[in-house]
Amino acid sequence: MSDAGGTNIAINQYRTHTCGQLTVDSASAEVRLSGWVHSRRDHGGLIFIDLRDKWGITQLTFDPANNRQAFDLADKLRSEHVVTAAGTVVTRPAKMINKKLATGEIEVAVSKLTVLSTSKTPPFEIAQDTDTNEELRLTYRYLDLRHPRLQRMLKVRDQFIRHVRHYFNQQGFTEVQTPILANSSPEGARDFLVPSRLSPGSFYALPQAPQQYKQLLMVGGLDRYFQIAPCFRDEDPRADRHAGTFYQIDLEMSFVEQEDIFKVVEPLMVELTNEFSDKKISEQPFPRIPWREAIMKYGSDKPDLRYDLFITDVSQEVSGSNFKVFNEVLEDKGQVMALHVPGGADFSRKDIEKLTEHAKIHGANGLAYLIIKDELVSPIIKHLGEDVAQAIVKEVGANKGDAIFFAADAWEKAAKVLGAVRVAAATTLKLADDTKAAWVWITDFPMYELNDEGKIDFSHNPFSMPQGGLAALQADDPTTILGWQYDLALNGFEISSGAIRNHQPDIMYRAFALAGYSKAQVDAKFGGMITAFEYGAPPHGGFAPGLDRLLMVLLDQPNIREIYAFPKDSQGKDLMMNSPAPVSEQQLKDLHLSIKKK
Amino acid sequence: MSDAGGTNIAINQYRTHTCGQLTVDSASAEVRLSGWVHSRRDHGGLIFIDLRDKWGITQLTFDPANNRQAFDLADKLRSEHVVTAAGTVVTRPAKMINKKLATGEIEVAVSKLTVLSTSKTPPFEIAQDTDTNEELRLTYRYLDLRHPRLQRMLKVRDQFIRHVRHYFNQQGFTEVQTPILANSSPEGARDFLVPSRLSPGSFYALPQAPQQYKQLLMVGGLDRYFQIAPCFRDEDPRADRHAGTFYQIDLEMSFVEQEDIFKVVEPLMVELTNEFSDKKISEQPFPRIPWREAIMKYGSDKPDLRYDLFITDVSQEVSGSNFKVFNEVLEDKGQVMALHVPGGADFSRKDIEKLTEHAKIHGANGLAYLIIKDELVSPIIKHLGEDVAQAIVKEVGANKGDAIFFAADAWEKAAKVLGAVRVAAATTLKLADDTKAAWVWITDFPMYELNDEGKIDFSHNPFSMPQGGLAALQADDPTTILGWQYDLALNGFEISSGAIRNHQPDIMYRAFALAGYSKAQVDAKFGGMITAFEYGAPPHGGFAPGLDRLLMVLLDQPNIREIYAFPKDSQGKDLMMNSPAPVSEQQLKDLHLSIKKK
Repeated sequence: MSDAGGTNIAINQYRTHTCGQLTVDSASAEVRLSGWVHSRRDHGGLIFIDLRDKWGITQLTFDPANNRQAFDLADKLRSEHVVTAAGTVVTRPAKMINKKLATGEIEVAVSKLTVLSTSKTPPFEIAQDTDTNEELRLTYRYLDLRHPRLQRMLKVRDQFIRHVRHYFNQQGFTEVQTPILANSSPEGARDFLVPSRLSPGSFYALPQAPQQYKQLLMVGGLDRYFQIAPCFRDEDPRADRHAGTFYQIDLEMSFVEQEDIFKVVEPLMVELTNEFSDKKISEQPFPRIPWREAIMKYGSDKPDLRYDLFITDVSQEVSGSNFKVFNEVLEDKGQVMALHVPGGADFSRKDIEKLTEHAKIHGANGLAYLIIKDELVSPIIKHLGEDVAQAIVKEVGANKGDAIFFAADAWEKAAKVLGAVRVAAATTLKLADDTKAAWVWITDFPMYELNDEGKIDFSHNPFSMPQGGLAALQADDPTTILGWQYDLALNGFEISSGAIRNHQPDIMYRAFALAGYSKAQVDAKFGGMITAFEYGAPPHGGFAPGLDRLLMVLLDQPNIREIYAFPKDSQGKDLMMNSPAPVSEQQLKDLHLSIKKK
Repeated sequence: MSDAGGTNIAINQYRTHTCGQLTVDSASAEVRLSGWVHSRRDHGGLIFIDLRDKWGITQLTFDPANNRQAFDLADKLRSEHVVTAAGTVVTRPAKMINKKLATGEIEVAVSKLTVLSTSKTPPFEIAQDTDTNEELRLTYRYLDLRHPRLQRMLKVRDQFIRHVRHYFNQQGFTEVQTPILANSSPEGARDFLVPSRLSPGSFYALPQAPQQYKQLLMVGGLDRYFQIAPCFRDEDPRADRHAGTFYQIDLEMSFVEQEDIFKVVEPLMVELTNEFSDKKISEQPFPRIPWREAIMKYGSDKPDLRYDLFITDVSQEVSGSNFKVFNEVLEDKGQVMALHVPGGADFSRKDIEKLTEHAKIHGANGLAYLIIKDELVSPIIKHLGEDVAQAIVKEVGANKGDAIFFAADAWEKAAKVLGAVRVAAATTLKLADDTKAAWVWITDFPMYELNDEGKIDFSHNPFSMPQGGLAALQADDPTTILGWQYDLALNGFEISSGAIRNHQPDIMYRAFALAGYSKAQVDAKFGGMITAFEYGAPPHGGFAPGLDRLLMVLLDQPNIREIYAFPKDSQGKDLMMNSPAPVSEQQLKDLHLSIKKK
């Protein structure tokens, strides 16, 4: 910070220094300080006040012998009153020095006190981390913001964004503000809509991301774009997602391959981790795991690599058993997968019940397991048989004291069930080391998947370039087609998705045709983009790390609301501003709208 | 720029260099370039192609003797196709050197050509500044963005914003992103509303400015805030205002007086003028003119000080005449004002008709004038009499060849009529020197004015601190009360408004009471802010220069739409994205809305 201690504040009627600035070097100086009454003590006929501002705390002393008027006024001060105090800097006696404070060697003997504004009794104690409920803190956010925890967050968030901007500027990227009054996007999450007054019955939409605009900037020849971009999604609340709005580090580059994107993004993530967290990066360069392998081995496309719990396909081992449940799955072209949990033999019955709940949430009927004590313990051992069980133990490399959990289903579904159990087991065993930052690239996402109705659908972004281009789209089984699509995950959180885009209209139409869209449908939905691509689009690709989630993970915040100055509550409400709120009839009339009564 | 010539692009299958990078130093090197076909010439059996990217243009040559396949492919290339060309850098013969191009001493003899994408014939010529209508340019904005004029704008806008951020960071300000899903503000312009799905019948509003949030950040102890803030106003279109959205350089400071705000803002404006325009600042420090004087002398609170046309009160001089029109105004406590226009004797009849139109637009019935030729020429001289006319000429300091225009009305209205005539006369006489940047502070705005119904109303921001505080609010005539409110203008454009805020609830209630608001009404409308001020608000103030308008004026752009990457048209429509647009019935249903048919 160029402003440590607030050394370039304005010197005026309110202050000559900040509350974090004075030291013994200023002894005997006449000074003025302004700030909030942090605390007050009466002692030996003197009044001591800790005065607080953004930069620190300075002790004020009021001696009735020195100035009776100031003393009497100080006597009436309460917590959070705002005052200006003028007086003399006095060196504290050695035994009164407070080494915890930067200003702890001095105090200010006040000769003049002015009350700038008063405060009611705050609804919660500002100075301390109390258990005050979040609703109250959000309602009085301006009071909570005075707490060092949020003062620090605001500062760090600013420095973090500054670092990101500096990085991209140095690399020749141009920051562009794309429209916030944008258009409704036909794919993805739910849009926030903005009714137009001048075009009755029509709506803008707030951008879910500047995806189309940034691609159009590439068509426009900008070559390297970035933006700290506000994004808007009308989704239902979730703990790692802020209601309604979030910011992403949005970037797009022309004439690039996947590797070029990685080369720009990975060094930035390394810098941000090292500069803004106490975490040590587990592996550099970041490991790269193809999507299919990530699902097979970790049951997740955002695997937490801080712990070594692995999933193994044990279909072959169990194929010799008499266990009907497994055999039926195998006959149905499914697979039996096993998650090996070292130390899992210590799980209590309750622990296992919890893990079973996680498996069920992800669609399993139950959670079969095998515990390796002096002998093998398992509810299904009588079905598997001892030999098959031992073969499994051998295959997954388990030892005495370990546990093995099973899922049997179509491979991806079975793996994802165990992926959920993996995370839950690691939490129970406290395997995740908070001092580690385990970054991982997930590559080679499939272009297509079978949807719930068994039809071919895009599995992620329909605008990604298929690996192999037009030729690849001739594949007999579209689910085998890979896209130039990639994710970046950190400690089990998805930080970003990205792709090399499909910039050629003929490949685009073909890719959509595979998912069952006619040319007319594609034109109706994405005509703007495709028209643009007909006028000379460069190959391009991009990425968009979620700024807030990245900050949340790096700073070990329990809740993404801690990352915003003025967050919405989990229901999307601003409790301080009482928003959203009803509007006047005239406003609705201007917008040609009426509210539907149920 | 750290990236002149694009020296840190990725080296990959598409390029080893940019199109702005190669010089004779690279002679004989094997290179790859990618970009757009800017133009093609066939000459002496060779094909010459100018290849364009963000950084420049490089000439490619195709010789059938060298590579027939590449030559044949080049023969099919058309404007705006995107290609990769691999070949050898060749020094041009001396007489072929193009000194206008950074790469003009070399060309690339192409041995391999790859077409990355093709282009239909663009709907307008990209390379040249043509007279293409704006609608077509906006519809194909991605093509217009390829023009050097907009490439430069994107770059300069980014550098400009970077400069602003750096400045505030150096001064210890923290940038904070305030909510975009905000609350409807009861004052000011029309809000854009965002219906809430989770709170049926309730709405967010997009912020007209982060006014309340930045004041709450001060209550929260942040001390120095800034933001490049997106703002939203559902106003009717105007040439110097972008439809719907604009950005402001939003700032707020605690424990400050007006002078402290000026000390932060003025040096920034000096830097921005010097770094981003060719204009020379007319006067430093910026002149400061109290609001009343600005209206009296220039008929405007954003006077263009690049030319010396002044308004004079000639009530005393005309009071002896027999001119009924003037006398009635004087009897009605109005004033007669005169605008002196040196050189105005040359105005044609048509010029004067135009000036009269401007006067009428601002509420005058006509525009009396006096032209000083060998004798005084005026339609009203027979009413004024020669003596009065000569007294006026003397009072305003006019000479032969000048003109004097009159307005008679309540002082402010009369002055504003002449203010409009002043601007129009200066335009006709081409008095405004584009090489000058005439900055001016307007200070001491009145807190109150009489509204159209003759009642006391706030003249500007109700949240400004009255000069003199609570005591000043006892004045017999509230229109004499001044606020700590100030504007900054440049060459006749309002760049910013700001104020020292009213941070004390008792003064706030009293200030509103003067304008006829009960405590209950104030609480209902501004309860959130006032509640916050009851918990210890520091004195604070701020400013908010309009980023886009500032750029428009400094860069001499005729139209604010030139300052945005993706502007709306004058009716608020995004012609490229076809936004706003109708939405589905399901979307309306989710939002509990229906559209009112007329």
